[in-house]
Amino acid sequence: MLGVVGDSATGKTTLTAGIAKILGKDRVTTICTDDYHKFDRVERKELPFTPLHPDCNYMEIIEQHLKLLADGEPILKPIYNHKFGTLDRPVLVTPEEYMVVEGLFGFYSKPMRDCFDVKVFLDPPEDVRRAWKIKRDVGKRNYTEEQVDADLAKREPESEAYIRPQRAHADIVVRFYPPGPDLDVDASHYNVKLVLRPTLPHPYLAEIASATRTAKYEPIRFSLARDRGQPVDVLEIDGTVPDEVAASAEQIIWEKMHKDGKLDANAIGLFAEGDQQRVSGPLGLTQLLIVFQLQSARAGFEFS
Amino acid sequence: MLGVVGDSATGKTTLTAGIAKILGKDRVTTICTDDYHKFDRVERKELPFTPLHPDCNYMEIIEQHLKLLADGEPILKPIYNHKFGTLDRPVLVTPEEYMVVEGLFGFYSKPMRDCFDVKVFLDPPEDVRRAWKIKRDVGKRNYTEEQVDADLAKREPESEAYIRPQRAHADIVVRFYPPGPDLDVDASHYNVKLVLRPTLPHPYLAEIASATRTAKYEPIRFSLARDRGQPVDVLEIDGTVPDEVAASAEQIIWEKMHKDGKLDANAIGLFAEGDQQRVSGPLGLTQLLIVFQLQSARAGFEFS
Repeated sequence: MLGVVGDSATGKTTLTAGIAKILGKDRVTTICTDDYHKFDRVERKELPFTPLHPDCNYMEIIEQHLKLLADGEPILKPIYNHKFGTLDRPVLVTPEEYMVVEGLFGFYSKPMRDCFDVKVFLDPPEDVRRAWKIKRDVGKRNYTEEQVDADLAKREPESEAYIRPQRAHADIVVRFYPPGPDLDVDASHYNVKLVLRPTLPHPYLAEIASATRTAKYEPIRFSLARDRGQPVDVLEIDGTVPDEVAASAEQIIWEKMHKDGKLDANAIGLFAEGDQQRVSGPLGLTQLLIVFQLQSARAGFEFS
Repeated sequence: MLGVVGDSATGKTTLTAGIAKILGKDRVTTICTDDYHKFDRVERKELPFTPLHPDCNYMEIIEQHLKLLADGEPILKPIYNHKFGTLDRPVLVTPEEYMVVEGLFGFYSKPMRDCFDVKVFLDPPEDVRRAWKIKRDVGKRNYTEEQVDADLAKREPESEAYIRPQRAHADIVVRFYPPGPDLDVDASHYNVKLVLRPTLPHPYLAEIASATRTAKYEPIRFSLARDRGQPVDVLEIDGTVPDEVAASAEQIIWEKMHKDGKLDANAIGLFAEGDQQRVSGPLGLTQLLIVFQLQSARAGFEFS
């Protein structure tokens, strides 16, 4: 079971959709913990907190449902309709071979965290997140730009108190960011910085770093660092990474994986931007690294 | 945990509401398994089966939720809106000291049955049930009398296949019926026949039978019988039972119970008919007998 947690508009759906495609959609069940809102949009107007507050969500039911899914049991999942802000009729969710859980919460309590094999936290710079949020909420959720800004300001204290602390519990922290100060750059050119905590083994790292190092320019960099005081590996991949360099790095991870005939190598790095299908080397490597971890967890589960 | 199962319009809600009142409403959580319909009224028009079919209900989720509630865990319960026939937003249900579960299903599978301490099946004569169903569905659920009759005919094969077989798993089978052929009699004058299976002990039976026997007339009768071939106790109470005879029988059960200050003796036998509050001796004894069983189960749970 993979958890992808992050504040709103941090790219959770983009990441999880790509991972599901690589794994093979028919054996992946994806759910979103935003569906566990207690109140609809109208009711929330009367309330002193935002959806980022635990009291605004059925936290104990998130825990219960994660446990049931981790045990292979079906759940009747509530539905929050993001477009209209309503709570709709629930749906039956049956766990497939792989479970992907995305949302604001997921690593909040220990019982939740204990359900996951791989925990990913999305952590883009705030200005990038704001740009993404405006693009999405104005385009698809019937908000105005002013409403989005007011919403961000209102949410900030709760984001700090309840969402961002979950970063500490992630195995992998993912930060996509534009190469320069211009936010309006094609997302396929974004750099990525991955913080890799030693809670998972990464047997491909040294190999990738040495194989992709060139005399003049290192588009993929690997370093030992501290994150909030704790030792971590950091993997940085530039958006300008040449296709063949990205491909050779992907190949190193790919070779360590169990090819079961369902994995789709052609989906690596693909993402949708509006109606456009794009490819990103940094995204591809990030996806593949997470898929490797999921597959390893599953192999441990199958053979243990 | 008490289960009250029976076909539609068999008096489930009347019985469970009265029991909850006697126990003390604030320590009873009541849920209805009809809420686990998979389809709304419009969708069901296209389907080859009625709500009495297991495929029309989230059976595995009923099982799961009963288990969770029996373990004292909260659930996020779906809602079927009987008035409009829609599936609405789910609600959080937290089990109190006593859980009461009513509905069409509940004793269908062994995992469901294993959750209950006391299992009651409601089994009125079909013509009585038809009269009750017309009164309720025409009055409160926007159906016409012709629609109710068509519905009953359509449901009959599924009632036989899926609902009535659950009778075999009940500890107590309850049959309320009018004293004569006239169906339009005041429900407070109904007789009741209770089939008591030896799956529960009934330490008050002999005492009630001997205490309420009079020379001329036995308004409360107690006999050994066979039900579908199996040995059972049968307790019959006439609607014409004098108040003081009903009271003395109730007293015999009441004395064996643990008075915890929350039990409401004044609620015994009360039921609502339209806007009227009525009292029925047969209903009162039936309620009290079930409350006794629930309390015994809880005492066993508390002290074991």
